[in-house]
Amino acid sequence: MDIASVIGLILAMGLILGSIAMGNAPFAAFIDVPSGLVVIGGAFAAALIAFPLKSMLKSPKIALKVILNKGEDRLGLIKQIVDLAETARRDGLLALESKVGEIDNPLVKTGIQMAVDGSTPEVVEEVLRTETEAIAVRHKEGKGIMDQLGRFAPAYGMIGTLMGLIMMLQDMSDPSGIGAGMAVALITTMYGAIVANVFFCPFAEKLGLISRNEMVSLEIAIRGVMAIQSGESPRAIDQKLKTFLPPSQRGEE
Amino acid sequence: MDIASVIGLILAMGLILGSIAMGNAPFAAFIDVPSGLVVIGGAFAAALIAFPLKSMLKSPKIALKVILNKGEDRLGLIKQIVDLAETARRDGLLALESKVGEIDNPLVKTGIQMAVDGSTPEVVEEVLRTETEAIAVRHKEGKGIMDQLGRFAPAYGMIGTLMGLIMMLQDMSDPSGIGAGMAVALITTMYGAIVANVFFCPFAEKLGLISRNEMVSLEIAIRGVMAIQSGESPRAIDQKLKTFLPPSQRGEE
Amino acid sequence: MDIASVIGLILAMGLILGSIAMGNAPFAAFIDVPSGLVVIGGAFAAALIAFPLKSMLKSPKIALKVILNKGEDRLGLIKQIVDLAETARRDGLLALESKVGEIDNPLVKTGIQMAVDGSTPEVVEEVLRTETEAIAVRHKEGKGIMDQLGRFAPAYGMIGTLMGLIMMLQDMSDPSGIGAGMAVALITTMYGAIVANVFFCPFAEKLGLISRNEMVSLEIAIRGVMAIQSGESPRAIDQKLKTFLPPSQRGEE
Amino acid sequence: MDIASVIGLILAMGLILGSIAMGNAPFAAFIDVPSGLVVIGGAFAAALIAFPLKSMLKSPKIALKVILNKGEDRLGLIKQIVDLAETARRDGLLALESKVGEIDNPLVKTGIQMAVDGSTPEVVEEVLRTETEAIAVRHKEGKGIMDQLGRFAPAYGMIGTLMGLIMMLQDMSDPSGIGAGMAVALITTMYGAIVANVFFCPFAEKLGLISRNEMVSLEIAIRGVMAIQSGESPRAIDQKLKTFLPPSQRGEE
Amino acid sequence: MDIASVIGLILAMGLILGSIAMGNAPFAAFIDVPSGLVVIGGAFAAALIAFPLKSMLKSPKIALKVILNKGEDRLGLIKQIVDLAETARRDGLLALESKVGEIDNPLVKTGIQMAVDGSTPEVVEEVLRTETEAIAVRHKEGKGIMDQLGRFAPAYGMIGTLMGLIMMLQDMSDPSGIGAGMAVALITTMYGAIVANVFFCPFAEKLGLISRNEMVSLEIAIRGVMAIQSGESPRAIDQKLKTFLPPSQRGEE
Repeated sequence: MDIASVIGLILAMGLILGSIAMGNAPFAAFIDVPSGLVVIGGAFAAALIAFPLKSMLKSPKIALKVILNKGEDRLGLIKQIVDLAETARRDGLLALESKVGEIDNPLVKTGIQMAVDGSTPEVVEEVLRTETEAIAVRHKEGKGIMDQLGRFAPAYGMIGTLMGLIMMLQDMSDPSGIGAGMAVALITTMYGAIVANVFFCPFAEKLGLISRNEMVSLEIAIRGVMAIQSGESPRAIDQKLKTFLPPSQRGEE
Repeated sequence: MDIASVIGLILAMGLILGSIAMGNAPFAAFIDVPSGLVVIGGAFAAALIAFPLKSMLKSPKIALKVILNKGEDRLGLIKQIVDLAETARRDGLLALESKVGEIDNPLVKTGIQMAVDGSTPEVVEEVLRTETEAIAVRHKEGKGIMDQLGRFAPAYGMIGTLMGLIMMLQDMSDPSGIGAGMAVALITTMYGAIVANVFFCPFAEKLGLISRNEMVSLEIAIRGVMAIQSGESPRAIDQKLKTFLPPSQRGEE
Repeated sequence: MDIASVIGLILAMGLILGSIAMGNAPFAAFIDVPSGLVVIGGAFAAALIAFPLKSMLKSPKIALKVILNKGEDRLGLIKQIVDLAETARRDGLLALESKVGEIDNPLVKTGIQMAVDGSTPEVVEEVLRTETEAIAVRHKEGKGIMDQLGRFAPAYGMIGTLMGLIMMLQDMSDPSGIGAGMAVALITTMYGAIVANVFFCPFAEKLGLISRNEMVSLEIAIRGVMAIQSGESPRAIDQKLKTFLPPSQRGEE
Repeated sequence: MDIASVIGLILAMGLILGSIAMGNAPFAAFIDVPSGLVVIGGAFAAALIAFPLKSMLKSPKIALKVILNKGEDRLGLIKQIVDLAETARRDGLLALESKVGEIDNPLVKTGIQMAVDGSTPEVVEEVLRTETEAIAVRHKEGKGIMDQLGRFAPAYGMIGTLMGLIMMLQDMSDPSGIGAGMAVALITTMYGAIVANVFFCPFAEKLGLISRNEMVSLEIAIRGVMAIQSGESPRAIDQKLKTFLPPSQRGEE
Repeated sequence: MDIASVIGLILAMGLILGSIAMGNAPFAAFIDVPSGLVVIGGAFAAALIAFPLKSMLKSPKIALKVILNKGEDRLGLIKQIVDLAETARRDGLLALESKVGEIDNPLVKTGIQMAVDGSTPEVVEEVLRTETEAIAVRHKEGKGIMDQLGRFAPAYGMIGTLMGLIMMLQDMSDPSGIGAGMAVALITTMYGAIVANVFFCPFAEKLGLISRNEMVSLEIAIRGVMAIQSGESPRAIDQKLKTFLPPSQRGEE
């Protein structure tokens, strides 16, 4: 679980709810179901137009990734690659066949399997790079959904507020109702700003970061497989791959 | 038919119409024909200035693509390429001549025809890549029209609202008319926001996505043709091209 | 003449003037000479600061290009290149010397002249590419002027409106004048929005499109010259260059 | 200490506080603790959702970097590289082993150590480039946090203002309270604009500049190490690396 | 002196001052010293935080460059390079030694000096390219300062207006003062818009253009030096370098 994201979500919602509680208006003044429907429903409807149904159905899972992601265990990945390199050095590339089942990282698994099967380094690299690109495309779509939700939510908030203002302006016979009418109209803009800035925009940012981190791990995996196949020494591989770690993590041999 | 886009469109319009129905203002309060003309007519006029007539006339067809696109059948494309590779392996490249007529994908068709006619791999690749670029340019123009409509609609909405406000401010002798005048002025901004956020902007996003997907299929087609021409084994081609599929789809042999 | 741009301009202006005519305020209410001077004069002044005098003096001619451009005759260009290739094939490269005078396209002319004069293919390509880049830079500056005018017009519109509001707020002794004062203040913002969205922004878009189209023709010209110089067969050149055409145009042999 | 940043901070805060002091409203009118909590707390909460806890905890240190950075001593770095090159020229590459301990720049240190240990130039360059990329990624994240804070602060300012307006509009029974209610509502927007434009946005800009400067020093270090390893003459190295300095600094031999 | 920039500046200021003179409010209504301090002082303070003191101190000189730049004399530069090429052709590369002192362009000077001193073409090009990159970085920083001033000026304008509104709303006991209070509050936003759109934004645009032009001249210089060193004929060099000129300037032999 990504503790920072959880704390951030609780803090953002707590600040907003706390501010309302500290004010002298009742909570009910901030609740308007049709406004909520226009903002959230509208943003999802616009995203549904723009993205495939399959991707949209996966979007709650993608959003959960922000909260549940555990970070990349790059040190473990490098350790496993170096282990494989040692086996390959000692017993030959074919000796890795028996170890393929134990490999966690799917890219390393595919690469080692192909190397054992006798694919040339060029073909192995091409396959792994295409795979990486495909993963990048999937990530980009996930982030894109959040980006669009964060862009459409305030837009539908503004549409709702305009509708509310037009309704209010139609009937100004009772001046005492103007304030309340305008308050309701503004709620939609507020909802749009809240869902965009508490959920969609920070979530999109985080998904971008998670993706960039995963891309680095995939790069480590590709370079590791290529180095094993070209018979580099485990020590050289370890040194080369550890440059991807922050200095503080490198000491842990 | 792209069910997600249809649901999204119905949902977005339903939410907006439903909100109006739930309010206490009559529907008529939200209808103003001159405002609609300024927003939609203005956005199309600006797009007509910016794009060729031929492209503008195709824009309804392009917009329909958002609703009617069926998605790429990449698995079928790969299967067909692997079939061709098997024939080429068994009976030689020239044996593909009789099969050219059955090929659906125009890029594969062109490529195989050229290979059979004896063009060198470099020439075949150059022709296919130029073709792909030209398709990308056409897609970009289609998306560009939607992008510009989505940008000009709110701009003309604002122009209409400013005109309405100036009219209203000219004649403030009857204070009871101010509210109604302002309501009418705001309708143009609301129309601009609605057509941009229900139609043009999500449509532009979707066209970008459809284009990116088609580009991947074109890349599969090019790599497939190149692999057939260089005589790679059908199994290797299958493995290489399937890296373009999401893992879940790869199992289906 | 680019009929779409002309129709678009007439339509956009017609919609705006028609809306005013349909309203109940007199035309005079929308005319304010100082506002017009601040918006249009201000935008041109800012562009004068940002661009060389020479480029600014050419800007009306550039703007006219949007209306007068006839589109690229790529089919004719390809035909001429294939004709040259046939002559070169039949009678040798030097036989093209007598035909140089008939070549319309300046890039093809320069390239063929250089090839006849004995320049190496590398030098010919370098010269043609540098020329193309220089044309791209000139186009970019033309589009840049329109972009900046489209950005400064609304900015000076806002400056004018702020000046008008400050004037109005200085003297609120006569409440009946407030409405008219505010109307005049808003006219500047409206002018800025109109000139940006009817003229400058769509013009900038169109200039970008015209430039991209011309770049494709220049690419056809360069590839054609290179192919002629390297002695490719007219048929291969025809096929290669026609990939730059939309499929519908290719059939016309 | 970066004197410019400190002066800038004091000047910006002084101008804002001075303007308030010169006005006729008491200081207390500009202080509202819940508004401050919503803006600053909200911006940090949104950043917490978007960035890892570890990076967020480092953000105060990163912000201090803006004030404490001393600038790059490129002249000293070049001098040290040229010294190493002279030793290598005179006594051989292995003679650098004893000098590794004295090298300040970690990249030069790593590179020389690897060269002495017998790594090939290709491997040395790959390791140093990967290291540089990793540093660039860390810098980008630091700047990214400031960028997001500078984007979320005004957003939460707007959310706070909308909440304040809704509260105020709920209760318009006492007209004399409307002004004060609206003033409080606007404070949140003002806080958001101030923290974004006095702190987060200029800090993000400065971090980008510091990073670009450091990248140039890293490039000098890499090129220096590569030149030493390939045995270039100290004079040539000095001349080559000094092109990275502004002309005014080059004279100092 | 760049006459266009001077005319533009006078025109922009004249239009703004003329509009005020034509209105019925006294000039004094548009002057508010604290507002000016907040906008201009605030923008410079934010830039001071973001840029090194040394760069900020050079910013007035950079701003003057917009007015004083004379444009590039590319024709003269090409003529000088062709002259040098003729000497080198006739009397050998070493004969250029005596001419180095007469060369105006610092890049050509450095390059010819290095060529005469016996540096290889690769080294000469590397040094000249690094130098060019360093100049590009310095230009970018100059433009960056103007960009940031043009971004911060309106931001501090808004901060000033919010402060003014809060002050005004605190004390609404005297309704007749509301208009004047609001007018003063709006002056800050107007100042921000004026300094950004009359000075900083057009200046940043112009600096970008001047830099791009200078980059082309540097490219001419580098290609000229490389061509001289590789012994190309003066006529070929002339033809190659003149492709960087607009066609109208090429005729002047």
